[in-house]
Amino acid sequence: MLERYKVILASQSPRRRELLQRILKNFDVVESDLCEEGFPEEEGKDLTVVLAENKAKNVKDRLMAEAPEETYLIIGADTVVEVDGEILGKPKNTAEAQNQIHMLEGRSHQVITGVSILICGNEVEESQITFAVTTKVYVASMDNKEIMTYIETGEPYDKAGGYGIQGVFSKHIERIEGDYNNVVGLPVQRLYRALRELDDKS
Amino acid sequence: MLERYKVILASQSPRRRELLQRILKNFDVVESDLCEEGFPEEEGKDLTVVLAENKAKNVKDRLMAEAPEETYLIIGADTVVEVDGEILGKPKNTAEAQNQIHMLEGRSHQVITGVSILICGNEVEESQITFAVTTKVYVASMDNKEIMTYIETGEPYDKAGGYGIQGVFSKHIERIEGDYNNVVGLPVQRLYRALRELDDKS
Repeated sequence: MLERYKVILASQSPRRRELLQRILKNFDVVESDLCEEGFPEEEGKDLTVVLAENKAKNVKDRLMAEAPEETYLIIGADTVVEVDGEILGKPKNTAEAQNQIHMLEGRSHQVITGVSILICGNEVEESQITFAVTTKVYVASMDNKEIMTYIETGEPYDKAGGYGIQGVFSKHIERIEGDYNNVVGLPVQRLYRALRELDDKS
Repeated sequence: MLERYKVILASQSPRRRELLQRILKNFDVVESDLCEEGFPEEEGKDLTVVLAENKAKNVKDRLMAEAPEETYLIIGADTVVEVDGEILGKPKNTAEAQNQIHMLEGRSHQVITGVSILICGNEVEESQITFAVTTKVYVASMDNKEIMTYIETGEPYDKAGGYGIQGVFSKHIERIEGDYNNVVGLPVQRLYRALRELDDKS
């Protein structure tokens, strides 16, 4: 699939790499060097798409400067946790982690991943496809002891919303509605469909 | 949790072992030596519970013969794929795998895991808790080429229904409704809740 392109995943996440391998055998990883300081003005889906676009464009600029003779397909992605219209970032300390888990327990929230597929380089007109996919996640009620036990695992700190669905927190997740892998970091089925359509066209 | 018991997982599945580790640190694995030839008469949820009970009881008999001085908590589980009331087993050849994927693509089906928690041994009255959890899985439409590409990975053959949700087939799974880990092999959140209640009582 997509043999005419040099496919690039613009993400440092090992989870995203593993998920993209389910769709494509051959791709390279080039991390964007954007420093994310706060969020742009957009909300929810629009926000994730803007962040995904920024990552893809940042990587594009560097690749086109280094090796403009190639034809690239660059995949950028960004995942956020949204509850009552508020975007949750990565908790910085115990109090923030506690606060976030309190916001999530005993109810549902949304996990949104925005994706940008950017085609550029030699012999192609630059083009871009973007989309965002939402998965609804229901977290069971948790008492304070359970919240503290979870925080003490150290798991919340590098994760937006303070949890990872694929780790020990899964015992608190009652159900989801949508694509599971979208919560992990890539909407695998939707991305596969978009890439297959590009492949059919090319 | 559950320190008074010697906890036993009555399953050979490495996936179930990994999932139970999210709930409990200390348990042993003892495989049941039942040979599953066809299915009992029961359907759907009842079937999975009967199969889970049989596994737990089989392991109990052997443990109680070897070391009756211990107090055991034995967890048996069985997962089936059901579509239009029909239970799909593990496909034996390409034709069966093709047929199963055809039955699943472009629609939803149910994955049901039955669980049996059996308490027995020294200083306890024998007791049992059983439950079954259902997750609805929506598989995208697939053309013949996609079906054959999937079958050629060799993945279908050791899996009921011919697919594993955590592998390359995930690119064909549009969405799920329910506990993702229930499809992998254990309803982690429901099992955690049951074990926590047992812990509170003991």
